[in-house]
Amino acid sequence: MPSHNRVKVAVLGASGYAGIEAVRILAGHPFVELGVLTSEHYAGREVAEVYRHLAGVDLPPFEELRPDLILGRAEIVISCLPERVGAPLIAEFIQAGIKAIDVSADFRLKDPAAYRQTYGADHPAPALLKEAVYGLSEFHHRELREARLVANPGCYPTGSLLGILPLIRRDLIDPSSIIIDAKSGTTGARRQAAVEQLFAEVNENFRAYKVGNHRHMPEMEQEISSALGREIGVMFVPHLLPITRGILSSIFMRPRAGTTEQDVRAAFEASFAKSRFVRILKPGELPELKNVRATNFCELAFVLDRRSQTLCVLTAIDNLGKGAAGQAIQNLNLMLGFDEAAGLLAAAPVP
Amino acid sequence: MPSHNRVKVAVLGASGYAGIEAVRILAGHPFVELGVLTSEHYAGREVAEVYRHLAGVDLPPFEELRPDLILGRAEIVISCLPERVGAPLIAEFIQAGIKAIDVSADFRLKDPAAYRQTYGADHPAPALLKEAVYGLSEFHHRELREARLVANPGCYPTGSLLGILPLIRRDLIDPSSIIIDAKSGTTGARRQAAVEQLFAEVNENFRAYKVGNHRHMPEMEQEISSALGREIGVMFVPHLLPITRGILSSIFMRPRAGTTEQDVRAAFEASFAKSRFVRILKPGELPELKNVRATNFCELAFVLDRRSQTLCVLTAIDNLGKGAAGQAIQNLNLMLGFDEAAGLLAAAPVP
Amino acid sequence: MPSHNRVKVAVLGASGYAGIEAVRILAGHPFVELGVLTSEHYAGREVAEVYRHLAGVDLPPFEELRPDLILGRAEIVISCLPERVGAPLIAEFIQAGIKAIDVSADFRLKDPAAYRQTYGADHPAPALLKEAVYGLSEFHHRELREARLVANPGCYPTGSLLGILPLIRRDLIDPSSIIIDAKSGTTGARRQAAVEQLFAEVNENFRAYKVGNHRHMPEMEQEISSALGREIGVMFVPHLLPITRGILSSIFMRPRAGTTEQDVRAAFEASFAKSRFVRILKPGELPELKNVRATNFCELAFVLDRRSQTLCVLTAIDNLGKGAAGQAIQNLNLMLGFDEAAGLLAAAPVP
Amino acid sequence: MPSHNRVKVAVLGASGYAGIEAVRILAGHPFVELGVLTSEHYAGREVAEVYRHLAGVDLPPFEELRPDLILGRAEIVISCLPERVGAPLIAEFIQAGIKAIDVSADFRLKDPAAYRQTYGADHPAPALLKEAVYGLSEFHHRELREARLVANPGCYPTGSLLGILPLIRRDLIDPSSIIIDAKSGTTGARRQAAVEQLFAEVNENFRAYKVGNHRHMPEMEQEISSALGREIGVMFVPHLLPITRGILSSIFMRPRAGTTEQDVRAAFEASFAKSRFVRILKPGELPELKNVRATNFCELAFVLDRRSQTLCVLTAIDNLGKGAAGQAIQNLNLMLGFDEAAGLLAAAPVP
Repeated sequence: MPSHNRVKVAVLGASGYAGIEAVRILAGHPFVELGVLTSEHYAGREVAEVYRHLAGVDLPPFEELRPDLILGRAEIVISCLPERVGAPLIAEFIQAGIKAIDVSADFRLKDPAAYRQTYGADHPAPALLKEAVYGLSEFHHRELREARLVANPGCYPTGSLLGILPLIRRDLIDPSSIIIDAKSGTTGARRQAAVEQLFAEVNENFRAYKVGNHRHMPEMEQEISSALGREIGVMFVPHLLPITRGILSSIFMRPRAGTTEQDVRAAFEASFAKSRFVRILKPGELPELKNVRATNFCELAFVLDRRSQTLCVLTAIDNLGKGAAGQAIQNLNLMLGFDEAAGLLAAAPVP
Repeated sequence: MPSHNRVKVAVLGASGYAGIEAVRILAGHPFVELGVLTSEHYAGREVAEVYRHLAGVDLPPFEELRPDLILGRAEIVISCLPERVGAPLIAEFIQAGIKAIDVSADFRLKDPAAYRQTYGADHPAPALLKEAVYGLSEFHHRELREARLVANPGCYPTGSLLGILPLIRRDLIDPSSIIIDAKSGTTGARRQAAVEQLFAEVNENFRAYKVGNHRHMPEMEQEISSALGREIGVMFVPHLLPITRGILSSIFMRPRAGTTEQDVRAAFEASFAKSRFVRILKPGELPELKNVRATNFCELAFVLDRRSQTLCVLTAIDNLGKGAAGQAIQNLNLMLGFDEAAGLLAAAPVP
Repeated sequence: MPSHNRVKVAVLGASGYAGIEAVRILAGHPFVELGVLTSEHYAGREVAEVYRHLAGVDLPPFEELRPDLILGRAEIVISCLPERVGAPLIAEFIQAGIKAIDVSADFRLKDPAAYRQTYGADHPAPALLKEAVYGLSEFHHRELREARLVANPGCYPTGSLLGILPLIRRDLIDPSSIIIDAKSGTTGARRQAAVEQLFAEVNENFRAYKVGNHRHMPEMEQEISSALGREIGVMFVPHLLPITRGILSSIFMRPRAGTTEQDVRAAFEASFAKSRFVRILKPGELPELKNVRATNFCELAFVLDRRSQTLCVLTAIDNLGKGAAGQAIQNLNLMLGFDEAAGLLAAAPVP
Repeated sequence: MPSHNRVKVAVLGASGYAGIEAVRILAGHPFVELGVLTSEHYAGREVAEVYRHLAGVDLPPFEELRPDLILGRAEIVISCLPERVGAPLIAEFIQAGIKAIDVSADFRLKDPAAYRQTYGADHPAPALLKEAVYGLSEFHHRELREARLVANPGCYPTGSLLGILPLIRRDLIDPSSIIIDAKSGTTGARRQAAVEQLFAEVNENFRAYKVGNHRHMPEMEQEISSALGREIGVMFVPHLLPITRGILSSIFMRPRAGTTEQDVRAAFEASFAKSRFVRILKPGELPELKNVRATNFCELAFVLDRRSQTLCVLTAIDNLGKGAAGQAIQNLNLMLGFDEAAGLLAAAPVP
C-alpha cells in the first residue's frame, strides 16, 4: 500500500515492553504507518539507538508526550502508558476524533467503584467507561468494528477467558468451581528497575505471588459474570516463570453432570470457528509456550478427567502478543476495517 | 567419627542425577562412609573423572553392579536404579541382612495389580511389598526407625502429600476436591539422552504433560486414601519448568464448611511440630524454589480464599533433595538411629 | 506474486534446527514456494503435527528423501542433511539442472585432503569442489549470482570472517596474530539426543570445548588464507552458551603499526557498504545477541586498544540465521536473481 | 568447637550478594561465630525474613552500621560495603585492633593516583594502602597470616591472575601479549535495581561490555607488573553471561620460544602444589562453571597451540565464591591461623 494511504498510528509509552512490541509488529504491518512514538525516558532519541533490533526500520524518533502534537499526526492511538497516566489523554484524543486502544487497565473494569478498590485511586475518566469496548477480540468482534475506544484485556485475563467463556456460554461447567493456575514470563511486569526482577532473583527460581488477590482477578470475574448473567468469583493463582515471554494457564472446572468431551470440543469450536489465532489442539496435544512466542496465537487444549470429575483447560499465549501488543493490533485491525490478521501472521521463531 | 566406626553405604546407580546427589550429600555426612558406588555406564572410572565437582572427596571408583561384591562392603544400600532393575537385587540384599532404600518406584504401590497397571509389568519382588515402609519421613517416623526396606517416595508425591495429609488427618477438606498443579525442573527425568530434554527444547518453554495420567498419581492416591480410610481420586497436572531443580506444587481443595485459617495452620503445625525440614511460612510469605535448592527442606504456605471457597496450599521442594536423595538420606538416618538431620542441614546456595 | 510464478524450493533434512528455520523463513518469502520437505525421522507426517508453530502455514508434509521424487518438484534445493549424506544427492541434482545450497560442511573446504583430515572420510563428491561457491554472501556476491552450487558457510566461520576479512583486505592487521574467542548457543549442535546437551547439563553452566581443534578452524583459515594469498593459522576457542540461539565472537588481532580507528572503520564500511545485513555499530556500542535473534543480521563493533596494541572486533549473529538458514536464503535470493533481502527483513523479537 | 571459643566475625553489607554468601559460608564454619550483620536496607529485620534459605540458622538480625556498636562484638570484619563507604570504617576498626577484610576495591590498588583515576574519587584512607595485603590467597600466604587488613581481590582479577602469575614467575610467556576474554554471571554486579540487569534484558542474551576499560584492569596489571618487575598492559574484555554465578576466563598469551607443555604444567603445579582450591585439570579436560558453583574452587586448564603460537589458559571460578566471599573466608582462615580450608570444602551442587 502506498505510504500516503496508510493509516497513521501513534504508540504512547512506546519504549516499554508492550510498546516496543507494538512498534515491532506495526513495522511489518501492510496498512499502517507509525506516525508518533512517545517515551518519557528516551524522548529525543532515535528508536534504533535504544532498540537496535529496529535499526533499518523507518521510524520517527521517540518524543515527549504532548497531546497537541499528536493531533493531526495519528488517526488512532495505542496507549501503553501506565494506569491513570494515559486515561486523561485518551479522553482528549477521543474528543478530537482520534480512536484509542488502551493497553493499560484503565478502561477494563466497567464499575468505577471496582476500579477504585482494585487500583487504589479514583478513575481518571469515568465518563468513558461505558463506551469502552473490552477488547477480547474473539468475543467482541462486532463492537470492536464500531469502537472508538478499546480496553485491551490484561494478559492473564486473555489467557484465562479464552479457555472459560466458551464453556460458560454453553453452560458446560459449574461457574462457581473455576480455579486458574497461571504461569507468566517476566515481561508481564513493566520494564522498570526492581530488585525482585533482577536476573539473579528470577533465574532458577519459581514462585506464586498475589495468591487470590491479583488485580487481574476482578477483570476476569467481570467478564465471566457478564457472560453468565450473575456474579461469580474465581480462584486465581499467578506464578512467575524464569522465561521472558509467555503465559500458560491451567484452568480447572467442575463439569456439569453429563458434559462430554464432545460437548467441550464443540463449545470451543463454535466460539473459535472464525478465529485466526486460537488453535484448538487435537486430543493428546498440549499447549507449549514456545509455539506462540512473539505471536498473537493462542494454543488451547483440554482434558476431561472422569475419576476426579474435573475439566482441565490449558491455554498458551505470549503475554506481549495476544496478551498485550498483538491483541491491540488485532483490535486496531478490526477498528479500522482491515483484515483482522493483517501484520500478525508471522510464525513463532522455534527453537 | 573415626572412619572405622562409620556405617558403610552403597549407592547403586550412583551416576544418575539422584545417585550423584546422594553421593554429594553422603560425602559430607558425619556418620557414614561410601563403600560402594555402582554405575553401568561409568564402571571402572574414578568418580572425579566423570563428576569433577567431587574431586578431592575420598570416594571409591564407579564399579559394575555385582550383588556378591557388595556383601560385606555395605550395611545399607541406596538404590537409584530404574524400575524393575533394582528390586530383585534389593530382595537379595534384604535376605543377606543389608538394609535398603529404593529411590525407584518399585516398592511404593502396595498392590501388585496397581503396579502392573501403572508400570506395565509384573512386580519383580511382590513378596517384599508388604514389608516396605513408605518413606515420607514426616509421616512414618516410627516405622522407618524399624524398617529394613524403605520405598522412597516420588518427587511429586512428596511435594503434594506434605501439603495434603495434615488436612486429611483433621478432616479439614473435602477429599474428593483435590487438584494438584505441579511444576518440576528437568532433573525429574532420568539423565539419559532424549530430544525433548535438549536444552533448546526446554529453554524458554513451559508446558504441561501427562495431564491426569502421570505415574505418580496412583501413589498419591494410595497415600491419601490410606490416611482417609477410603478410596479417592485426585486431579494431577504436572508441568516442565525450564530450571534444573525444584518442584512447586499448588494444591487446591474445597475446605469443609467452617474450616478456618487457624484450623489449617494448626493442622500443619501439628503434623510438622518436630520436623526439621518442613518450614511453615508466615501469612503473606509464599514458597520459592530457590530457598530449597540443593537441600532437603520444604517450604509450605496456604491461602484460604473465602470468595471462591478454595484452599490453596503451596509447597516447594528440590526434586533431587526432599524429592529423592535428600529424603533417602533422611530415611537412612532414621533407619540407622542417627539424628534425622545428620548431613542434611547445609543452607541452599542463594542466589 | 501469484503462486504459479513462485520458484519451487526443496528443503532436505527439513526437521532439524537449521532445516525448520529455513522452512519458517521461506514460509514468509514473497517469491518462492515450498515444494518438498524431507525428513528421515518424520516422513509421512504433516509439518504442523511436529512443529505446531507452523500450523496454519500451507506446507507439504515431511516425506522420505527420494531424489527421483524431487525432480520436477523443485528448481533449487537447500540441503540441511548431515555431512556426506547430502553431497551425493546434490551431485545428482546439479546434474539434473537443479541448483543447490549445502548447509552442511561438505563443499566448504576446497582441498579434498583437508576434508579427509578434518571430517575423517573421503569426500563424497570431489568433482564438484571446484565449482562450489563459498556462500559468505557479502564477499562473493558476483559468483553467487552465477552459482549452481553454494557451500553455505559454517556458523562460527560466518561470525568470524565478517570481522576479519575486511581488515585482511586492507592489510590493517598482522594475520599471524588472529585469536577468535567465540560463544555459541546450543542449536549449533544438531537436534539429536545427547546427554551433554540435556537442559540440566547446559543450564547454569558455561565451558569451552575443542580448544584449537574445532572443525570450523580449517574453514576459517582457508578463507583468510585465500584473501591473504598465503597460508596462515588462527587460534580458535569455541564455548557453549546456555542460550538457544546466537554466536558472539570476540576477535583479537595485532594492528599493523600506524593502523588507526579510522582505517578500521573505513575498512568495514567499504566491505559492507552495500550490505543489508551487517550493522556496523557506532563507537561505544557493542553487539548483543538479542538484537540479531531469529534474523539474518550481524552486529559488528571494534575497539582499538592502544595500551595493549590489540584490536578487538566483536560480531553477533544468530547461528541459525546468518550462521545457517538465513544466509542460505540470502544466497538463494542471489542465485535466483531476487532482491538479496527478500523474506529476510523481519526485526528480531526483543525482548 | 564450643561457642564461647569461636572467633566473632562481623559482616558489613551482609544483605548484598557477596555479603549473604559470606553469611551462608560462615554459618557452616567450625571455628567462627557470626556476631554482627549489618544492612542499610534491612536493618532491624531477622535474616530469615529476608533470606529464607537461612531459616533455622542461628544468626543475629540485620542492624544498622554503627562502628561503636561493633567494637567488642567482633574480632574481625568482612566488609562487603561499596567502594568508599567501608574504607573509613575499616580504618577505625584497624585502629581499635579489629582485623578487616575488604571485599570492595578500596585497598586493592597501591597507588592513590591510580585509585583516583580508576574510581573517580580520592582514596578515603590512603594511609592504610601500604599495609593492606592483596588477598589472592595462593600467592600471599605468608603475608596473609600476618595481615591486619586484607584487600580481597576482584572477581575478574582472581580468575585471571591464577592463570597468569605462575607463567610470569617462570618467564614462560611474553607479558606484553596477554589477552583476557572473561565471561561472568550477573551476580558480579551489585544487588540493586537496574533496568539492564532485569531478567528479560539478560536472559537469552550475551554481550561484551567495557571492552578495554573495565575497573578491574588496573588491578590485574598492578599484580602482573608487580610479579614481573615492570609495567605491562593487558587487553581485558568482560562479557555478561545469562547465568547467576561464575566466571570463565579464556586467557591468551604468546609463549616464549621453547616453552613446552611440560613447562607450563610444571609452572602451575609449582604455584598450586599446596593449594586446596585450585584444580589443575588433566590434558583433555576443560573447566566448567558448574563444577565450581557455590564453592571456593578454581578449575584450570591450558592448551598450547603450536600452529598459532598461542597459549590458552582457561580458569573457572564462582564470582561469589573464590571471586568474593569464598576467598574472603579463605583469607580469614589464614589471618586467624585456622586451616585454610575450614568451612570451604563442600562440593558444588551438580547438576
